[in-house]
Parts: sequence; structure tokens; C-alpha cells
Amino acid sequence: MLNPVTPDFEAQLRAVLPAAAFRPAEPKYFEDPRGRVKGVEGLVVAPASVEEVAVLVKACNAARIGIVPYSGGTGLVLGQIQTEGPAPVTLSLERMNAIRAVYPVENMMVAEAGAILADVHAAAHAVDRLFPLSLASEGSCRIGGNLSTNAGGVNVLRYGNARELCLGLEAVLPDGTIWHGLKRLRKDNTGYDLRNLLIGAEGSLGIITAAALRLFARPERTGTALMVVPDPQAALDLLALAGKLIGDGISAFEMMSGMGQSFLAETVPELRLPFDPIPDWMVLIDLGLARAQDPQAALEDLFVQASEAGLVRDGMIAQSEAQRQDFWAVRETIPTGNKRVGSISSHDISIPRSDIPAFIPEGIEKLKELGDFRVNCFGHLGDGNLHYNVFPAKGKTRADYPDMPKRVAACVHDLVHRYNGSVSAEHGVGRLKVADLDHYQDPAKHAAMRTIKLALDPNGIMNPGAVVDVTKG
Amino acid sequence: MLNPVTPDFEAQLRAVLPAAAFRPAEPKYFEDPRGRVKGVEGLVVAPASVEEVAVLVKACNAARIGIVPYSGGTGLVLGQIQTEGPAPVTLSLERMNAIRAVYPVENMMVAEAGAILADVHAAAHAVDRLFPLSLASEGSCRIGGNLSTNAGGVNVLRYGNARELCLGLEAVLPDGTIWHGLKRLRKDNTGYDLRNLLIGAEGSLGIITAAALRLFARPERTGTALMVVPDPQAALDLLALAGKLIGDGISAFEMMSGMGQSFLAETVPELRLPFDPIPDWMVLIDLGLARAQDPQAALEDLFVQASEAGLVRDGMIAQSEAQRQDFWAVRETIPTGNKRVGSISSHDISIPRSDIPAFIPEGIEKLKELGDFRVNCFGHLGDGNLHYNVFPAKGKTRADYPDMPKRVAACVHDLVHRYNGSVSAEHGVGRLKVADLDHYQDPAKHAAMRTIKLALDPNGIMNPGAVVDVTKG
Repeated sequence: MLNPVTPDFEAQLRAVLPAAAFRPAEPKYFEDPRGRVKGVEGLVVAPASVEEVAVLVKACNAARIGIVPYSGGTGLVLGQIQTEGPAPVTLSLERMNAIRAVYPVENMMVAEAGAILADVHAAAHAVDRLFPLSLASEGSCRIGGNLSTNAGGVNVLRYGNARELCLGLEAVLPDGTIWHGLKRLRKDNTGYDLRNLLIGAEGSLGIITAAALRLFARPERTGTALMVVPDPQAALDLLALAGKLIGDGISAFEMMSGMGQSFLAETVPELRLPFDPIPDWMVLIDLGLARAQDPQAALEDLFVQASEAGLVRDGMIAQSEAQRQDFWAVRETIPTGNKRVGSISSHDISIPRSDIPAFIPEGIEKLKELGDFRVNCFGHLGDGNLHYNVFPAKGKTRADYPDMPKRVAACVHDLVHRYNGSVSAEHGVGRLKVADLDHYQDPAKHAAMRTIKLALDPNGIMNPGAVVDVTKG
Repeated sequence: MLNPVTPDFEAQLRAVLPAAAFRPAEPKYFEDPRGRVKGVEGLVVAPASVEEVAVLVKACNAARIGIVPYSGGTGLVLGQIQTEGPAPVTLSLERMNAIRAVYPVENMMVAEAGAILADVHAAAHAVDRLFPLSLASEGSCRIGGNLSTNAGGVNVLRYGNARELCLGLEAVLPDGTIWHGLKRLRKDNTGYDLRNLLIGAEGSLGIITAAALRLFARPERTGTALMVVPDPQAALDLLALAGKLIGDGISAFEMMSGMGQSFLAETVPELRLPFDPIPDWMVLIDLGLARAQDPQAALEDLFVQASEAGLVRDGMIAQSEAQRQDFWAVRETIPTGNKRVGSISSHDISIPRSDIPAFIPEGIEKLKELGDFRVNCFGHLGDGNLHYNVFPAKGKTRADYPDMPKRVAACVHDLVHRYNGSVSAEHGVGRLKVADLDHYQDPAKHAAMRTIKLALDPNGIMNPGAVVDVTKG
């Protein structure tokens, strides 16, 4: 059992950590970004170095006090706020935000966990390199949180998830020892993959304090197109054709539904939609090519060949950087439209890619058995990652469906499970999906996770209740 | 403590497993491929299904009998043979060699652990896809071993190590439970990364029985060149220039030393060497491009620009597939030349890429303090992975250096450690490098590895003595 933070414990910490490490307990540390959940308030500490983190973790471990790691606070699954239990220490990484070093020749950078993702991008850009992790919250999320949740985003198709962009870590383990693992090596087969065990563990096995990150040659020429496709199967076929014609240069391949576009028309009238009337399905294709390749010509060629094959019905190729931004705005404003309509339940799922054309309508049919809904399905088709969000019927609001959120989620997740998919593709488990894991996860993996958690964190101080709740079961 | 296999135990197994699972104890199961080490002989069992593997593991766990997983038997660090201790069960995956399914639309395949790597290649080729893992032993190594050792090879630069090519596993854990984790998902953030924990664990945490593997669009046009560079720094600069001009299409970038070429001239006279006189350094560049790109033109452009920048002095671009094979033969025959000269000590190391130009000569200087040697340094420059092999001076043989192998290895590995490199870049730890890990590895990681091993395999039955030797320390 864990103990709550007490004034005595705070005094004990103040004796070993500098005054600047103690932060006012502002509400942001205890609220989820959707503003729906309020967490248990405790002591907020923001160490300035890995040594200070180690001091803090050692003290908490000795006193059996929980630690909730807090990065950018943008997570959507309650990983960064403790929803019940004794008052914890909230460990904010905000003061460890340095870019420690950049190695252009190696395509490598070492950043502290608190570095804001946009600042990591800027540091890469400054040496003519690319750090490709890209997601909506990049202006405020921090790289430590991105790694702890194995963040995804729009460039996974080409560059991989956060874990594929990290070659080494510095971290503090639950007993307060420091792991100096900031290797800048592409190949290193010296024992168990502790790096990937901490990545995606959402702070439940230790605190990531710094990371060696992979950089990439900056694509010198970019191109962006919107193409109208008859259905999701055609979108998949279009992606395969693009791979054949253009190779690895496809940076993003995003699918959008007519429902999402109609939400935008309804709630964000100042946004100009690209096609009139709104098509049932369209995709956004983004290319990043080397100097010798012409993205404009590549997209035109793709459009011509795809038209001949009946895969596309209409399309637009951006003719300027401003138009490119406009195309992306159509994709990136979808969450705003969703928020304004107000979802009953949102789902971050992935499905084996070839099953997507069957899954999407099957889900809509299943939901009809529960009631009258609108479904906005959109997302990273190239990764099989869909945001499958369920909304009230036209003229109704979320308040009209008081008992539905859990039933809707169960309906969607059951179907995902039947398709051998994932009920958390890129957002993680946090505290919101612990019960889903208990329900859907393979029992052998589930048992192994508990064993690992209990072995590395026997007192259960690291992000209590997140991912694997060892206080239960 | 473990128990030896006994006739009673064998009888017990024969009662629950089919007769076909029991194999004659041929010498190959107990010898390393270099023919220098002989392992402890035991019972050889080759199950035909994951259920049979589970039955075997459960029985061994109950009886405290060690299991040595045996895949293709090509490993170079004694991971597949037990060098001391009570007679174990050798668990061969040779009968689980099916390609279970291929999903071209998803760029995915499910293969059993015993599938030979070349057969995996062929199955991908049959649907016009590429499985990019490529190494010298691909005609006999098996994918389960490739994953268990996180194999590298020549295409890591572009496609990553074995772990980056695997999206899901089926495995039997040390208690005999089956983990059904054959997800075909690019994004799946549901808890700890058990997949990557088993990959690279060399069978010490469980038995991989099948894997979901990533496939790639087959590059439609290929090009290969050999270029003479003045030194390793120029080779690195050439790689950076190639990235700018050609983008992601560089599949391999291999560096070869003049010493290696002179070994070939001496020991493989039938091989025609490309340049006369032998240059100090050269690189092999391999491109795989999409339909719309011209590899010949790209290589010519690269050569012209690199010449102007003083990065290359001479070069040849393959004009036919036969010539392409000839170029590759120069690279792939290097190990044969090495074997015929007879190394004193071979090292599979990686170094942060920007430190390579300093490391190579510094190592040669350090070795001079020990005696008179020849060093053949070659390998996967793009990955910072060098094979830094030390040979007798001209006119001498390995027998003239009886006390040197350990001292040479320590000299090279100490320097690698000082450069924050890895003493096992792609071959793994096995039993050969357990002491190196004890010596060089970060103490916090080392302790975490022991904790994980003891938690998941409390009886120590999985590949006893490999990677983490919990019987000691």
C-alpha cells in the first residue's frame, strides 16, 4: 500500500532538493486536457537534472509514495493524472528541457525529456535535418511524454512510431538508480531491450529523463494532394499504387470521411472545404522527396494512373506552400469539428490494413443495434490506425445518450478485438483503458506485464494505477 | 540449480509428444559454426507446433531442466550451444518452418520460427514484395534465430534491424504459457513491449515460435557502384551527399579496407578485384528505387558531385545484373579471405558514426603496443557497425600469438567502450560475451536485466548461461 505525501515528507524533500524544484500546485497538473476529469492533488516537483530526479525517486521509494510523471499534459487517456488513491508527487519534467547536443553527421540529437516537441523540430531544422514525429499537440507536448506513450501521428507510415525514432535513453529506475543508456548507435545487441520496455510504459517502470533521437535528411522537395476515392478499398489500392510509383517518399496518407467534412461545414464555417458536394471519402497524400525527384510530376502521374484504374474520382494538387497548408488544415481541423459536435465515445483503434474496408461498415451496422448515431471515421490509413468516433444523431446532443458511452465503446472494441486489432493504437493505456486491457489482452502477455511491473517496481510507486494496476487483481 | 536430462525424463516427454519430435543427437546441434567449441550434449527435440513447444517447456520447467533453443545454428557467439552445466534439452525449431500466411495488401507475412531466411525472401518475392533482412548465412539461418538475436546485416541502413521488421510474435514463455501476439498492426500501444523484450533476448526469456513480419514494396530499379574514397571521413561525407541527392533509396553502404582486399588477392586468387592497385578504402553503394527514378543517372550524378568535392578518386557503376553480382561478391567474399588468413580476434562493434574516422587509426595504434598485427576493418558504415578483425603479421599465423586473443579483444573493446560504442553490434551476447557485458555494461541496466530474467524465468531454464548468467554473481 502507498502512503500519501505529508508535510513531513515535503520537508524531507526540501532538505535535499533546491527550492526551485518545488512548483505551485496549479490546476493544469491535475486536469485532463478535455476538462472532464479531476485528479488527486499532491506535491508538484520539477527537478532540473537526472541526479535530482534520482534523489526524488529514491525518497519516494523509501517512503512508499507514488510518483505521477507529468510531461506536456496533453495525453488523452489519463496517464498523467492520478484519479484515485493517496496524494502522490507529480514529477514534472518541464525544467529538463535542454537540447543537450546535435550530431548532424550521425543524424542524431540528444534531448532532455522536457523538451517541447516543436523545439526538437526546430533544433533539427537548424542543422538541415528532420525529426519526423508530428502530431496535433506538438506545440505543447514534450518528448519524454511522446516516448513514454510511444506517440504516433501522421508520419508513422514513413518514419515509424516514437520508439523507432529513439536509439538510447537516460532514465531513473523505480529504485532510484540512473540508467545511462544514451547510446547513439544504430546497432547495439548487448542484452535485453530496456529502451523499448520503458518506451510505451507510460512512466510505470521508470522516468525517462533524456533520449538520443534519430534525425533524417530533410526532404528537399514536398508535394501534397487531396484525392477523392469511391471507398476505403480504393484508398488502400491507391496507397499500394503510390508505393510502386513513388517508393519510400510517401510521408503521410490520411483518410477522411464525408461525415467529418459535414461536421466542419456545420461547425467551422470559415474553413473552405475542397470539394463541393462533399465526397464520401477522400485522402490526403504528402510526399517528401530528394533533390532529383519532382513531386508535382509524381502526383500527376499517380492521379492519371489511379483515374484509369478507377481508384480516384477527383483530385487537387497543391500549387503553392499556402495551398499545401490549406489542404493540411482540412485534415487538422477535424478534431475541432468533432469537439464542437460533441462525441459520445471516441476510439483510437487499429485494424489489419486489409480488413479496414470490411470493418468500417460493419461497425456502423453494429452500432445501429444500439441506437441512432453518426460515425466520423478518419485517420492514418497507411498505418491501419483509425479514429472511429461516435456522435449523436443530427439534432441531438451527447446529453441525450446518458447510458451510451460505455456501451458504444464496448461495441466498437469488441469488433476491433474480433478483427485482431488494437483498442489503443497510438494514445496508450493510461488509466482510462486499464479495464480494456484486462478484458481484451492476451492472458500470457497480461501476466508477463504484471510480473515485470512487480519485479522492477515492487513498491508500486511508479505512476500508480496506470497501464498495469497491481493494487488490484 | 538445474537438473540434467535423464532417461526417465525422456520417457516422460515421449509419453506426451509424438515420436517424430525426437531427433538424433547429430553433432551439428552441439558445435559452433567456426568449429572451435563443443557444447554439452543432451536430448534434441523438434516440436511441430506451438502447443508441442508449450508441452515441452512446461515439462522442463517442472523438472528444472535447461532448454537450449536451436534455430539455424549459424550464430557466432555460442548462443545455441551450452558450454557447461547439466545436459539440457536442445529445442530445435526446424519442423516449424511454414509460411503461415502472406498479406500483400498489408505488406505483411506470418512465418514460423523455423522458416529459413531465404525461404522468407522467396515467399515475399512471390507476391512482388521484399523482406529486407539480408545476411551472409541467409541460406541456412532461420527467422526465429534472426529475431532472437536481433540480426542486422547489410540493409539495416534503410530498413532497420530484425526488431524493426517484426510487428508481432507468438511465443512460449518460461512457464509454458503461450503468448498469442501475432498482431499485424503498425500501431498498437496496449501495454509493455513484450515483443521487443523477446527479440534480442536470445531465447533466455522464452521461445519465439512465429512472427508477423513487415514486407516492403520491391524496389523496381536497382543500381550498384563501387567508389574509391581517400579515407573513412570521405566515406561518411559521401553517404551524407548521397542522402541529399537520392533520399531514402540507399539500401546498403558498405566500407572495405585495402587490407581486406589484399587478403582476397592472397587467398582467393580466382576472384577478380575491381581496382588495381588496391585502394586503401572503398565503398559499395546499393540503390533500390521506385519506377520513376533512374539509378544509373543517380549514381553518375553522385559520382560527379562527389569527385568535385574531393570525396571520391575512382569508381565503377554496374552496367548489368552480372556486374552487380560481381561487385557484391567483392564485399561478400571478405569473410572467406579472413577465414583463410585466420584471425587472432574478431570484433563486431559499433561506434557513433562521427567518431569512426578517429577510432579506426586509434585502434591500430593501441594494438601496436601489444604486438605486430594486421587489421581488416570493414562493414556497415551507414550503421556505424564495423567488423574490426585482427590478424597475424605477414608470414605469421594465429599459432604464433597464443596469449593474444583475450588481450587483443580487451584492447579493442576498451577503446569501443571509451567511444560510447557497443561491443556487440549485431551478433548478440550468447555465452561468448557474457563477461564483456558484466564488464562494460551500465550497472543499472545490468541489474534490471537480472531482475527481469529472474522474474520471468525464476528456475533459470531458458538458455542457461546465455546473455544473463543468473547462476553466477
